[in-house]
Amino acid sequence: MSIAYDSRVAALLVVDPYNDFISEGGKVWDRLKAVAEANGCVPNMLQVLDAARRAGLRVFYALHRRYRPGDYETWQYIAPIQRAAWSSKVFAEGTWGGEIRGEFAPRSGDVVALEHWGSSGFANTDLDMLLKRHGIHQLIVIGLLAHTCVEATVRFAAELGYEVTVVKDATASVSAEQLQAAIEVNMPNYASTMVTTDEIVAILSGASSVNGAKRREVPGAQVTPPDQG
Amino acid sequence: MSIAYDSRVAALLVVDPYNDFISEGGKVWDRLKAVAEANGCVPNMLQVLDAARRAGLRVFYALHRRYRPGDYETWQYIAPIQRAAWSSKVFAEGTWGGEIRGEFAPRSGDVVALEHWGSSGFANTDLDMLLKRHGIHQLIVIGLLAHTCVEATVRFAAELGYEVTVVKDATASVSAEQLQAAIEVNMPNYASTMVTTDEIVAILSGASSVNGAKRREVPGAQVTPPDQG
Amino acid sequence: MSIAYDSRVAALLVVDPYNDFISEGGKVWDRLKAVAEANGCVPNMLQVLDAARRAGLRVFYALHRRYRPGDYETWQYIAPIQRAAWSSKVFAEGTWGGEIRGEFAPRSGDVVALEHWGSSGFANTDLDMLLKRHGIHQLIVIGLLAHTCVEATVRFAAELGYEVTVVKDATASVSAEQLQAAIEVNMPNYASTMVTTDEIVAILSGASSVNGAKRREVPGAQVTPPDQG
Amino acid sequence: MSIAYDSRVAALLVVDPYNDFISEGGKVWDRLKAVAEANGCVPNMLQVLDAARRAGLRVFYALHRRYRPGDYETWQYIAPIQRAAWSSKVFAEGTWGGEIRGEFAPRSGDVVALEHWGSSGFANTDLDMLLKRHGIHQLIVIGLLAHTCVEATVRFAAELGYEVTVVKDATASVSAEQLQAAIEVNMPNYASTMVTTDEIVAILSGASSVNGAKRREVPGAQVTPPDQG
Repeated sequence: MSIAYDSRVAALLVVDPYNDFISEGGKVWDRLKAVAEANGCVPNMLQVLDAARRAGLRVFYALHRRYRPGDYETWQYIAPIQRAAWSSKVFAEGTWGGEIRGEFAPRSGDVVALEHWGSSGFANTDLDMLLKRHGIHQLIVIGLLAHTCVEATVRFAAELGYEVTVVKDATASVSAEQLQAAIEVNMPNYASTMVTTDEIVAILSGASSVNGAKRREVPGAQVTPPDQG
Repeated sequence: MSIAYDSRVAALLVVDPYNDFISEGGKVWDRLKAVAEANGCVPNMLQVLDAARRAGLRVFYALHRRYRPGDYETWQYIAPIQRAAWSSKVFAEGTWGGEIRGEFAPRSGDVVALEHWGSSGFANTDLDMLLKRHGIHQLIVIGLLAHTCVEATVRFAAELGYEVTVVKDATASVSAEQLQAAIEVNMPNYASTMVTTDEIVAILSGASSVNGAKRREVPGAQVTPPDQG
Repeated sequence: MSIAYDSRVAALLVVDPYNDFISEGGKVWDRLKAVAEANGCVPNMLQVLDAARRAGLRVFYALHRRYRPGDYETWQYIAPIQRAAWSSKVFAEGTWGGEIRGEFAPRSGDVVALEHWGSSGFANTDLDMLLKRHGIHQLIVIGLLAHTCVEATVRFAAELGYEVTVVKDATASVSAEQLQAAIEVNMPNYASTMVTTDEIVAILSGASSVNGAKRREVPGAQVTPPDQG
Repeated sequence: MSIAYDSRVAALLVVDPYNDFISEGGKVWDRLKAVAEANGCVPNMLQVLDAARRAGLRVFYALHRRYRPGDYETWQYIAPIQRAAWSSKVFAEGTWGGEIRGEFAPRSGDVVALEHWGSSGFANTDLDMLLKRHGIHQLIVIGLLAHTCVEATVRFAAELGYEVTVVKDATASVSAEQLQAAIEVNMPNYASTMVTTDEIVAILSGASSVNGAKRREVPGAQVTPPDQG
């Protein structure tokens, strides 16, 4: 596999690693569990996250809106997936289910984009701008759900001009049919590279020795700390 | 079915009715033909278009980039679906395949958005702005391919705040699996209403008597012809 | 003046009514004070807000990013106005300066968009989507700074397809030249209507008797509370 | 001046070099001429264009909508600057005034974005996507009008995450006050660098010897010609 990831232009994008999705006791976990475990979703997500950190890739988070009372009551138009979020109150703000599962918690230097209201991490958020501010062009995407937030984020990324890699066993959906629609039917049209966790970890480990030692300087980059005001 | 369409806020959106897709002799038609004909795609699209025109709904067009030499040669990053368009030269500018099939040709008062480079009629185009300039909030979507341009446009529409109706037998994909992924798995999450051609024609015919006689004035609308400069 | 505002399609947009801007003791107030007081900025903003609420117009808020440590350290590219925000730590999260001045505090039913990183309330936020979800096409804009956040928001609003009214004495900048550049030179190209506080209050009071009694139903609007999940 | 431009991440963006703006006999030239000539606008634009080409920087074009009959008749909402374009029919399609002035005509390898309807070259176009597809993060901006299309494009560029350089004597407005509002009051908040033509030509000439010999390869860049389909 000829692709390589350079920490100057590549980043990891983690989609919705909320307790409600991927932790025992989460609101959706029971419905996801069979497909997620068959795909090795959570341990694979962790492996990719660790490999990306070791390779010096910056980690970005695309997170769904945490439900807050009053979010939808005044809307005149609403999409079915938003009506479902309103009804289920999934990822409710201030609850354990709306927290990121511990092992996936953002660290210093990670970048957490604004929460999104639909499925795409790019729609109505600052994700695109933050990626540009960091010089990023390539995204390795993990997380869930495969056919909603992951696929939407991958579709938007490709439309906006990013080069996308999807780790197909670091995601999950509720049904095998949904997972297959995302991984087999749709995402290969938008993601330049579809890999397994084993493949991406191998690539990133190799990349690490070349590029990962430190984040190299990019020509034109100019940010310096401001004077203290 | 309780939904109704008012010509003040609803419009028809026709996706990629190019000869290359839906006319005998088009570059992709042979690959689409079996699924399209089984779904009644082209005659159904025509029925919906006619019903929408009779109901006084404005018609918008979301069109894929017509291939032009030099389009991609300088790109550093490219999505698979764009590489395929580059290779196949589908919808080539200046060719019959890149023309809209005759029965679907835009008429005076229709609105043709700028061509898009990926799958979503909204990405990197003026479609969203043009819809707003016409006061539109609801979109009835027909056209193809179901799992690429139609689904992408539906996903973007919902993310951007539109209410979407998909006519599920006025679309097609190359394989039945692709069509099913779009119609059964994904679009129902984003489209508030999934209808057949028969259903939408019946609704629009009813709507026609109420709303279709003329496009009514909307409060706040202020456009008047400018002085001749 | 022939313009009218109908609560079905018009809303008030309040830009950055933070203590740091418009309250005695705020970080920027001392620099703004002379121009703001000469323009009657804060009392005029309050008059417009009250008149809009009485007329039944929904109130939206466009708010600048509240400064948080770590916001900019990792960026490779940064705009001067962002470097200044980094340096001044204006609107710091968790401080009084980063709170909305009391009289302008959002009420139930108001809509607060996600914070923005530059000057436009639309850039990299959910403001456009939230306006669409509420059926809004016309915006009455108040707040500050006139030549940065207000002008940027007005320019973006016009580009995105909204019809804009600016209340020219319900805003302020640091210098009279900046205020003039915004109000006299630039915003009249993008805002269909430039009014004084007295004018807009009169219009909204008249509008109130016609449209403001209650928010009327719009055809096609479909939101109903979901089942309790 | 410490800034440098590397052809891997920097590009020149030329705004609206239409005959109607900058050629003797153009519809707007007579109104622009005094300010443009005092600023050296057209010869300076040419010098910057030549220097950028010699330095190997890719050239992008942001162009205003060429007027076509039927463009605005159906709109419910319209901005003043669009009403003016409708009235003046500036840059009419198929006319000399709507052609790019000869010396500025795009060459092979240049990138011409879709036409925009307002003032920003980014709004409702593919400019942002095309810049990303070419790996561009820094923009040197020339063209006109200073306080409308140039300023709007600069504001949007900064909001979207680009680093901007404005060449302040390679632009013009109708009045000196408009030019000053753009160059002195507003654009320095969004453009990291404000330079003269002499300064940018000197910088690019220096850059040329380092970076301009050829467009160097960027890690991760993967575009290769497709198979002939």
